[in-house]
Amino acid sequence: MTFSPEQHYRQYRSQIERYLQSFISESKPHTLYGPSEYVLKGGGKRIRPVLVQLACEAVGGEAREALHAAAGVEILHNFTLVHDDIMDHSPTRRGRPTVHTKWDHNVAILTGDALLALAYRALLKTRSPRIQEISRLFTEGVVIVCEGQAFDKEFEERRRVHVNDYLMMIERKTARMLAVAAEIGGLIGTSDTGRLDALRSFGTSIGRAFQVQDDLLDIVADEEELGKRTGSDLVEGKKTFLLLEALRLAKGKDKAILQKVVNNGGVPRSRIAEYRRIYEATGAIASAERHVAQDLATARADLERLPASNARTTLLWLTDMLARRTF
Amino acid sequence: MTFSPEQHYRQYRSQIERYLQSFISESKPHTLYGPSEYVLKGGGKRIRPVLVQLACEAVGGEAREALHAAAGVEILHNFTLVHDDIMDHSPTRRGRPTVHTKWDHNVAILTGDALLALAYRALLKTRSPRIQEISRLFTEGVVIVCEGQAFDKEFEERRRVHVNDYLMMIERKTARMLAVAAEIGGLIGTSDTGRLDALRSFGTSIGRAFQVQDDLLDIVADEEELGKRTGSDLVEGKKTFLLLEALRLAKGKDKAILQKVVNNGGVPRSRIAEYRRIYEATGAIASAERHVAQDLATARADLERLPASNARTTLLWLTDMLARRTF
Repeated sequence: MTFSPEQHYRQYRSQIERYLQSFISESKPHTLYGPSEYVLKGGGKRIRPVLVQLACEAVGGEAREALHAAAGVEILHNFTLVHDDIMDHSPTRRGRPTVHTKWDHNVAILTGDALLALAYRALLKTRSPRIQEISRLFTEGVVIVCEGQAFDKEFEERRRVHVNDYLMMIERKTARMLAVAAEIGGLIGTSDTGRLDALRSFGTSIGRAFQVQDDLLDIVADEEELGKRTGSDLVEGKKTFLLLEALRLAKGKDKAILQKVVNNGGVPRSRIAEYRRIYEATGAIASAERHVAQDLATARADLERLPASNARTTLLWLTDMLARRTF
Repeated sequence: MTFSPEQHYRQYRSQIERYLQSFISESKPHTLYGPSEYVLKGGGKRIRPVLVQLACEAVGGEAREALHAAAGVEILHNFTLVHDDIMDHSPTRRGRPTVHTKWDHNVAILTGDALLALAYRALLKTRSPRIQEISRLFTEGVVIVCEGQAFDKEFEERRRVHVNDYLMMIERKTARMLAVAAEIGGLIGTSDTGRLDALRSFGTSIGRAFQVQDDLLDIVADEEELGKRTGSDLVEGKKTFLLLEALRLAKGKDKAILQKVVNNGGVPRSRIAEYRRIYEATGAIASAERHVAQDLATARADLERLPASNARTTLLWLTDMLARRTF
């Protein structure tokens, strides 16, 4: 039988699912463990934990030994979602009501707090002589994610945000934790600093590519495939890569039209086509595509620095999936 | 010069103060590090971190080596205060506006999150061959504190709460983290399980005593010394040890009067004297005093299981201070 990266990915995703399904064993207090279970059983692509396991395997370790850490990284991610959803007033997530909507604000604050502690509980089950370094890396990841979220909220209030500020912010909010995920997996399997560097860079690159592509898809995707209306970022007045890059590149009348998104906190849906035209004309879309392509090229080059293995093949497959992503 | 427990305590408290004063070195994002500094520089008795250092010294370790862990425990405590203050809608803390009042809810949520991560940052600087065990203990402490807070909020909504539920709740919300603080300090200094048991029990006992005494002082303290009006718990309708114990012991008309606190979510300040009389008559005050005395006796006996030392003397002094506390 030939090796299938997709099956490899699915296999590790199933391991994580099973781990998370049975992770919460307590039931009381109900207002804490009810929503915690609800969140952890909410599915998702589980990219981060699979990355931890594949990174471990790609440097010669046993993927199984990275399972606790993988779960820790995924639970941590879910903590950030619960608290971000409160701060962003998001009513739904993955097609279900968010915790603060289904329960209330207090429950969501506390559930997030517990998930952060539970993430450490999983992580700290890892058997590794480098557990202190792993825990520190994880902790610095949490601090940086908080910084990213704080910048994100600050930028919402600020009239002038440069596209470089935006890139700095997503590096903290999204890319760093993917770098940490990859490096933690690596640390469980090796102490080779060259390979650890490659994994860290790989995680950062796919994280950044993913976020810029997300902004891009909001304006160029097929609505049915995306599962929501395109242009939502413009309607909601979000300061995306495209808007900030277009603002940097535009002149005269186009610049004034772009500025309305910021000044009015969003634009009517009927104007989306006009903005798409400006994004094209200013070269903002081309710039976003260049950024994504460059990050993905870096990610592929990072993988070349690792020895050939099934795990490396699957990491490359994941990168290609990301590149071809149309939704 | 004779040994002064008070100076010993002050010396360690100063070390913690200095540590926390310089702990936050970043300034951006302002909405994260501004409030984090504000919280960590807000003073307080610093009982928890001093306990970590004294516990370490009491089992033969170097107090200095427990400083990072001590700071971790104190930062963790501050995380719980920031989030609890949001959930309890508290406008002030230690005479200053709370974070969600001075900034806003989102800032307070995120500041709490960052403080939790920063607590781990401090803790994980500890040099100890038992760092994994220490980190796990710390993590279980965080989970239990979240459970305690969830029970606390659930009990607010519940009409029937037994005094034993209350004791279970404060064991989680307050006592456990003091047990963890003492045990972590101990683990940095020793692997002697008998001494670690004694420290854990000591922490639990003073934590529980402190909380029941807090409830007691609200009704029997001198208003000037307490710094706030007595009877505030009754006015706010809080289900304290006294109220629940009195409800358990009372019969007939007294029971109906007590039930009003629960049913109406509080009573007018003019009725406090009547409730004080019922608390006395039912024996609830005597019961609370017995609980406190018993816990303090256990705490003193726990200290006897440790070798004589200055640190032990200072822990005993702290216990006596707690026993004599009138505010």
